[in-house]
Amino acid sequence: MANSKYEYVKLFEQPDQLLPNTWAVVRIDGRGFTKFANKYNFEKPNDKRALDLMNAAARQVLVELPDITIAYGVSDEYSFVLHKTCTLFERRASKLVSTIVSTFTAYYIFLWSTYFPETPLTAPLPSFDGRAVCYPSLQNLRDYMSWRQVDCHINNLYNTTFWALIQLGGMSSTEAGEKLNGTFSKDKNELLYSQFNINYNNEPEIYKKGSVVFRDYELVEPGTHNTASEGESIAELAAQPQSKTQVDNDRKRRTKARVVIEHLDIIRDDFWDRRPWLLSNKPGKIPKEP
Amino acid sequence: MANSKYEYVKLFEQPDQLLPNTWAVVRIDGRGFTKFANKYNFEKPNDKRALDLMNAAARQVLVELPDITIAYGVSDEYSFVLHKTCTLFERRASKLVSTIVSTFTAYYIFLWSTYFPETPLTAPLPSFDGRAVCYPSLQNLRDYMSWRQVDCHINNLYNTTFWALIQLGGMSSTEAGEKLNGTFSKDKNELLYSQFNINYNNEPEIYKKGSVVFRDYELVEPGTHNTASEGESIAELAAQPQSKTQVDNDRKRRTKARVVIEHLDIIRDDFWDRRPWLLSNKPGKIPKEP
Amino acid sequence: MANSKYEYVKLFEQPDQLLPNTWAVVRIDGRGFTKFANKYNFEKPNDKRALDLMNAAARQVLVELPDITIAYGVSDEYSFVLHKTCTLFERRASKLVSTIVSTFTAYYIFLWSTYFPETPLTAPLPSFDGRAVCYPSLQNLRDYMSWRQVDCHINNLYNTTFWALIQLGGMSSTEAGEKLNGTFSKDKNELLYSQFNINYNNEPEIYKKGSVVFRDYELVEPGTHNTASEGESIAELAAQPQSKTQVDNDRKRRTKARVVIEHLDIIRDDFWDRRPWLLSNKPGKIPKEP
Amino acid sequence: MANSKYEYVKLFEQPDQLLPNTWAVVRIDGRGFTKFANKYNFEKPNDKRALDLMNAAARQVLVELPDITIAYGVSDEYSFVLHKTCTLFERRASKLVSTIVSTFTAYYIFLWSTYFPETPLTAPLPSFDGRAVCYPSLQNLRDYMSWRQVDCHINNLYNTTFWALIQLGGMSSTEAGEKLNGTFSKDKNELLYSQFNINYNNEPEIYKKGSVVFRDYELVEPGTHNTASEGESIAELAAQPQSKTQVDNDRKRRTKARVVIEHLDIIRDDFWDRRPWLLSNKPGKIPKEP
Repeated sequence: MANSKYEYVKLFEQPDQLLPNTWAVVRIDGRGFTKFANKYNFEKPNDKRALDLMNAAARQVLVELPDITIAYGVSDEYSFVLHKTCTLFERRASKLVSTIVSTFTAYYIFLWSTYFPETPLTAPLPSFDGRAVCYPSLQNLRDYMSWRQVDCHINNLYNTTFWALIQLGGMSSTEAGEKLNGTFSKDKNELLYSQFNINYNNEPEIYKKGSVVFRDYELVEPGTHNTASEGESIAELAAQPQSKTQVDNDRKRRTKARVVIEHLDIIRDDFWDRRPWLLSNKPGKIPKEP
Repeated sequence: MANSKYEYVKLFEQPDQLLPNTWAVVRIDGRGFTKFANKYNFEKPNDKRALDLMNAAARQVLVELPDITIAYGVSDEYSFVLHKTCTLFERRASKLVSTIVSTFTAYYIFLWSTYFPETPLTAPLPSFDGRAVCYPSLQNLRDYMSWRQVDCHINNLYNTTFWALIQLGGMSSTEAGEKLNGTFSKDKNELLYSQFNINYNNEPEIYKKGSVVFRDYELVEPGTHNTASEGESIAELAAQPQSKTQVDNDRKRRTKARVVIEHLDIIRDDFWDRRPWLLSNKPGKIPKEP
Repeated sequence: MANSKYEYVKLFEQPDQLLPNTWAVVRIDGRGFTKFANKYNFEKPNDKRALDLMNAAARQVLVELPDITIAYGVSDEYSFVLHKTCTLFERRASKLVSTIVSTFTAYYIFLWSTYFPETPLTAPLPSFDGRAVCYPSLQNLRDYMSWRQVDCHINNLYNTTFWALIQLGGMSSTEAGEKLNGTFSKDKNELLYSQFNINYNNEPEIYKKGSVVFRDYELVEPGTHNTASEGESIAELAAQPQSKTQVDNDRKRRTKARVVIEHLDIIRDDFWDRRPWLLSNKPGKIPKEP
Repeated sequence: MANSKYEYVKLFEQPDQLLPNTWAVVRIDGRGFTKFANKYNFEKPNDKRALDLMNAAARQVLVELPDITIAYGVSDEYSFVLHKTCTLFERRASKLVSTIVSTFTAYYIFLWSTYFPETPLTAPLPSFDGRAVCYPSLQNLRDYMSWRQVDCHINNLYNTTFWALIQLGGMSSTEAGEKLNGTFSKDKNELLYSQFNINYNNEPEIYKKGSVVFRDYELVEPGTHNTASEGESIAELAAQPQSKTQVDNDRKRRTKARVVIEHLDIIRDDFWDRRPWLLSNKPGKIPKEP
């Protein structure tokens, strides 16, 4: 049937493909989460339930979108990494961002009652925004990940000290802010220890390191793989596309792999050395059941 | 504190502002909804509960984002319209799309149990993708809206006939498809009437017209306003920005206005003539309580 | 024949189409023209030969690219306007910008000796950069053109007074700059008249108004055409593309039309009222030879 | 002074920066050069004067824009490479493309009479279009360069045989085309040799290899430098920007270096191994005068 009179409006759709052969990171952020955290009385400086909920939602995003190789979360933000050879949705930015944001949001709402069984959600509901950024080299990607984890550390040390001053030291938030103004890490560590007998190093890893979510395979010995290798090359794939069997086989192993949530140092090489599948995009060996 | 070693990665963020003075439409679509509809046994050809849920979620998007002037939904898709003078999120495409998709998804999951009280959601959860498209002129925007409503009509007439052949006529889906192959609207109307005594015109408006969601003010007499007017001009706004009082006043009236869900013809001028606030972006008069 | 091993690099080419149904302006600017003007001893405040050369080059751009409807030039810049329905080079920004810049440059170099017969060009040669900007509405386009012409007026009044102070008043450039600091148009007009007996209104139009280049047809009576009309609509063209005869006919009339260089007020409606072909994109009537 | 009423139109300018840390190639192509070549009776299959003119123009582009590290030309096209750390014009695509196209065109017109002293140019003049493409990895860039040189070889072998069939074999162009249809490189080589006693290997390098233009420094021994190194890293530069002295020093050496035109194999590693400055973006050692 002739729908043609109006169909010309499709002309206005413009392409938005991400540059091929670049690492794409979709980062999502909670919208107005300071207010949201107050509404539901999130604990300060960290609310374990809220972080566990973020992690559970992120985990489900990886389960539903096997093209995502790794994700890193801290506070109300999460970064999802797509391998440089990824061609999901023809690399269309809007489609990638909206799908990840929507899937994450769906699980955040759905799983809320699991983590906050006694505080039902009411409107306005929590929501997230997101964007995609391309990183041309592996170093750029690793530096992005390191940036987020350093940020996690800086913010958590600050918040831990700030809330100790208030909750244990009886300061107002203004007083605590002024107290910390201009201090260095060392100063905050000392303040925590001398004044509140808190050894920051003993704080839970989830607060200090944030959370890493990825498909888990058998670890390899560092040094046995080339860390700098970014794995599959777009040139090789173009010259010799993977066979259907290979693709199917990879998919099966990815589906079989467990998606884990860890709180590890992702700045140092060791994390990447032992998990070559993260950068190579080739599934590893499924670990034997313990 | 020195986070600077990694912070250079911010250089890779690229701007994605939508062209000013264009109507922006964010359209979202259900991902894999054919499979999803089967999983939850959606009624064919239309599931009233599923449409009501879509509409309720869209309504909440307008409540939370007053910058959206009107939305149109059909099946598992929804189009949200931002006025050409809208500057929400500095018109950043990713931010607009992701926020709308996330808010919609949040309410879709949250309200599911209201509309499907006896079928709890299970993973994989429903999700949506989205994209933003700019329409430079009012005609282009109106044509976009007409395109979607014509599409609604075409698909609904087809589906109504197709499922009548199956549910009432005992055909297989292959047989029904073949029967309808090459038929025109007139043929389907006749077939429905002669074979199943269904007068398509008497089908519910929500199926035939889709759903329009907007802030409701007092209707005006057609002809008393300039329909072609697109209201506020970006040139005038630049020359003389609205006063804070004016902005606050507008916001209050928008917040007071009821967001309604209707099933009206949005192709003809009449709909727009009587609701000049949709195109002018100036809130109308709050209707008196009945 | 196997070129395929390397051909994958074509994947990196990304589309850059300008949004349809918007007026596109390609503005080019002389690179380092202050230095260039000094090298060739351009007269101050305006060098008639240099402006004539700019205009002659712009004229040839319109001759070679009939899709350009009008151009406006001042100093070392030129703006070329493409009608909102223009589909030249599928509206690819790079192709449009580079073609216009290259054609302009070619004629600038080629015609140099006509306008500067006694000063041969030597390396480094003059060159131009350019960019394309989309204006969604006719008002936006008209305002862009007005912006450039107001700029021409402001700069020319300033420069005329500045150089009078130096050339006739014996001031240094620093003294002249200080003298003019904080003055209004009225002050400069008075200074020119009282001190140097120069009536700014009597300055040549080419300096005061800049230059407009367009295809010339018979003027129409203002009021007999709809000024606000932007002519051909993208919706109509989509619904009913022009016949080949019509397209050929239009092309012939465009080719026949003389491309003229004028120095007129393009801010007021009158200019556009009398030349409806500029906005309608329909060639006018070829004027009879005098 | 108040130009503000119209100045809002600047809002429509949209950014177009190329992704940082990617190799950018600006490729320009002659517009309508088949027709142009006929107009000026270019010799077939190659016109040495025309190629020399292209090369001379490209050389001047490198002289005027020291940010360009290497260029490769064949037929009526030229590719200019900007190092991945290049920040010229803040990497704005339009500015980079238009400047390169304009500078090239200026010299092409200016130098025409040197290479075609007996055939003066007449309107319509030759012109070029261009576009920028980003290549994320060194391999992608090298593959792009290889692609162009393989294309040069394929086209030149075809054209050499095609024109031999016509000029020496007395065939029509249709006959020659049919004769070559479906042939492989080997077939064309044999045909040239057996029928016309032409050993393709002895054809001039400029035709077989195209032309490479770059700043020349002392060659280094292959194996003493890391070929895979892409030199300066954007991360290092961000962490520790070059000192002004270093920048000035580099600039001086670049200005001192001779820009040469060669016809070498750029597919094999050897070319790049011996000229590490091309990929490192660090000027080499100025060769001693012979």
